[in-house]
Amino acid sequence: MNHNDTICAISTAPGMGAIAVLRLSGPKAFEICDKIFKAAAKGKKIVDQPGNSIHFGRINDGEKDIDEVLVSVFRGPHSFTGENVVEIACHGAPYIQQQILKLLTGSGARLAEPGEFTQRAFLNGKMDLSQAEAVADLIAARSEAARRVALQQMRGGFSDELMNLRDRLLWFISLIELELDFSEEDVEFADRSQLRALVDEIEAHIRKLVNSFSLGNAIKNGIPVAIVGHTNVGKSTLLNALLNEERAIVSDIHGTTRDAIEDVVNLGGFSFRFIDTAGIRETADKIESIGINITYNKIKQASIVLLLLDAGDSDEKLHKAVEHIKSLIDSNSQQLLVVINKCDLSDTDTIVRRFALSEFSELSGSDGLVAISAKYRQNLDKLIAELLKTVDTRAIDSDEVIVTNVRHHEALSLALNSLLRVKGGLEQGISGDFLAQDIREVLHHIGSITGQISTDEILGNIFRNFCIGK
Amino acid sequence: MNHNDTICAISTAPGMGAIAVLRLSGPKAFEICDKIFKAAAKGKKIVDQPGNSIHFGRINDGEKDIDEVLVSVFRGPHSFTGENVVEIACHGAPYIQQQILKLLTGSGARLAEPGEFTQRAFLNGKMDLSQAEAVADLIAARSEAARRVALQQMRGGFSDELMNLRDRLLWFISLIELELDFSEEDVEFADRSQLRALVDEIEAHIRKLVNSFSLGNAIKNGIPVAIVGHTNVGKSTLLNALLNEERAIVSDIHGTTRDAIEDVVNLGGFSFRFIDTAGIRETADKIESIGINITYNKIKQASIVLLLLDAGDSDEKLHKAVEHIKSLIDSNSQQLLVVINKCDLSDTDTIVRRFALSEFSELSGSDGLVAISAKYRQNLDKLIAELLKTVDTRAIDSDEVIVTNVRHHEALSLALNSLLRVKGGLEQGISGDFLAQDIREVLHHIGSITGQISTDEILGNIFRNFCIGK
Repeated sequence: MNHNDTICAISTAPGMGAIAVLRLSGPKAFEICDKIFKAAAKGKKIVDQPGNSIHFGRINDGEKDIDEVLVSVFRGPHSFTGENVVEIACHGAPYIQQQILKLLTGSGARLAEPGEFTQRAFLNGKMDLSQAEAVADLIAARSEAARRVALQQMRGGFSDELMNLRDRLLWFISLIELELDFSEEDVEFADRSQLRALVDEIEAHIRKLVNSFSLGNAIKNGIPVAIVGHTNVGKSTLLNALLNEERAIVSDIHGTTRDAIEDVVNLGGFSFRFIDTAGIRETADKIESIGINITYNKIKQASIVLLLLDAGDSDEKLHKAVEHIKSLIDSNSQQLLVVINKCDLSDTDTIVRRFALSEFSELSGSDGLVAISAKYRQNLDKLIAELLKTVDTRAIDSDEVIVTNVRHHEALSLALNSLLRVKGGLEQGISGDFLAQDIREVLHHIGSITGQISTDEILGNIFRNFCIGK
Repeated sequence: MNHNDTICAISTAPGMGAIAVLRLSGPKAFEICDKIFKAAAKGKKIVDQPGNSIHFGRINDGEKDIDEVLVSVFRGPHSFTGENVVEIACHGAPYIQQQILKLLTGSGARLAEPGEFTQRAFLNGKMDLSQAEAVADLIAARSEAARRVALQQMRGGFSDELMNLRDRLLWFISLIELELDFSEEDVEFADRSQLRALVDEIEAHIRKLVNSFSLGNAIKNGIPVAIVGHTNVGKSTLLNALLNEERAIVSDIHGTTRDAIEDVVNLGGFSFRFIDTAGIRETADKIESIGINITYNKIKQASIVLLLLDAGDSDEKLHKAVEHIKSLIDSNSQQLLVVINKCDLSDTDTIVRRFALSEFSELSGSDGLVAISAKYRQNLDKLIAELLKTVDTRAIDSDEVIVTNVRHHEALSLALNSLLRVKGGLEQGISGDFLAQDIREVLHHIGSITGQISTDEILGNIFRNFCIGK
């Protein structure tokens, strides 16, 4: 597909850096750059330069010099978008970035929409749609697992096998449609048992992908952990301690976006999204009706409920809190993790014995109980290990394909439904034309993932969630 | 100067962007890059690549792929630092940036100190010290004037002439020192009248530079404007209206750092730093002693005092306010600008006539009075024009050299003092050895600006204020 216009955007993070990069893509990228760029080497024009080369010079606004820059040249199709691309690396003042952007738009380029560079890469056949979506996921990756899954998907690990299965199904449908042409002669070009075997294979594959989504979603958005507990039990001390654990990993490296991630903490390569619930007051009984509702809703969002207790409290109080939380959670889909805090204030042995002997023994037996000191950062490693136990890391370690995208999950679920109808039809020996219709639906849903089937609306929905400049 | 170690840093702004750039400089830049980079073209090594070339491939951590990246190669001395430099453009996730940075430091590079790339450029003779300082100013430029002055300085416009004068002075001192060797013979190699002419020339040049600093400082840090006025006179409405004027210029361009600049507003290419004074209450007489002190101090910081009045107030009240402010400001160094707000609420003609006939006529005659409506954004252009009148823009328009740096201003002032001693010595006909000593002082102070004379301490002070990655 050919685009007539040339788009431009600032591609590096907003704000002040040492340098910033502006990107320009489209048929007039070189000509527009030459209008505002004067190479240090006299007479040198960007339009004449080979791909993958870098050139030093100045950005000019008429007679006025704006900045000294480096210009990188990429010749389509050997570029990210598949078009001619220019990248301008300027000094990182936001003011300068804006001035250059204004010069570009004043010289014939237009501001790119969010994700428009990647959209062009898709439309120019540089990547399929699921790969394009993975670009956005990669940019947004906040943990090792998220980065890994996105990179794998960006490189086609997800779509390659799907496409292979789809192609085989396409072959069958062409045979079935051939039968329809010869319907009066009652021939069967498409071997039904072979088709059945293929359908089974596709079903198994898609089921696995569909099932991987709960893990994929947790990887992408962080595993939701509701922290519940009385006031002053040390919730924020615990959160800060966990954030410090993360800091220890990323050390003092520049660019750690502590503010932006709020209470998402990276532990052992996974993001945990801590949901603070301030709902539980003095004792569990005294919770007011409004507080109960808020806490209920927050607990419902969590896949792990972390009940934080104070080792100094009475057995009765602790017991009540545990029982109350147990009554609130869904033991099928949610995991309870009981954490005894402030263990530095008492004799640790006594605490452990006390809980081992008490009614909590069932919890401690199941490893669902950890004694820590958030303040003195004791036993945090055990707590982190318990949190990580809730994640099925095997799929990630084995480089299995994991679905992280809601749109893909929906398309796969729809494909699975259609596939089950194909299966039922085969069992009932329905006629070729009905079979073909169900198979076409499977093809449609699979094709929508990789973008073989796509509408402007779908594309719009996908790319508007990108950041500008990609 | 040769550095043995290779430094690395993230050079783009912190946070998430579409892409980010990491920079690596030093003797092992190529080797370190090759340890973690695998080019898409099989067997391709960065160490073998020509300068100013770009290469696509993957960053690896052992067997694990971290990201797909573009690597730009710059061969010293044809690079920013003068050393071998590699720039890695990766996907803009902060997590990925950090992972790559960790790989670089784990492969033999060390994290760069703030400004260390530019410091190396200075130490390797790629630029003099004042040019290096201009790099930081350029990155921090928030207005057209700041950008323009920094770029001019970065390109040596400031130091070239200084160095020329210094060289001529050096020639004289060598002649004078030659005289000392032949002191018994009482010869005069250095023509005193020629020296005197040179000293006059240097004095004129340095005086001009020293005098340019008040403008330079205003350009760099914003021109301080104290807004004074009673409560409810519309101060914040005015500020918002002025901020909107700025918005109209930068439009909706991505990356506008509205939050960071607080009340610094860009008007007509200059930054104005608005200082809010909440000190004036109901009437001028009623100001409490604490309020007076705070307001005094804030007014003292300003070079423009903008008195905002309410057109609906009585002549007596307005008159009192003007008189009071007049008593507070220093008419030699500060400018008073009286602005009548809420002119939409009354008949504008009446207001103009009233002020023309009243005791304010002296103000309106001197153009120091503007009638506006902040709410309806009327006459803001006139107000902005008045603000800009206070800036001597001629120096900027004529590309005259302007000193913006406190350190340079101090060195120039010291050089001027020494120069005046040389002048006095010439008049008194003091002996060559004393003359030489004073001239050496001039040389020292001028040399400290461009870094011909520098200590580790001076360099440390300069570069630690840089951002990391530059």
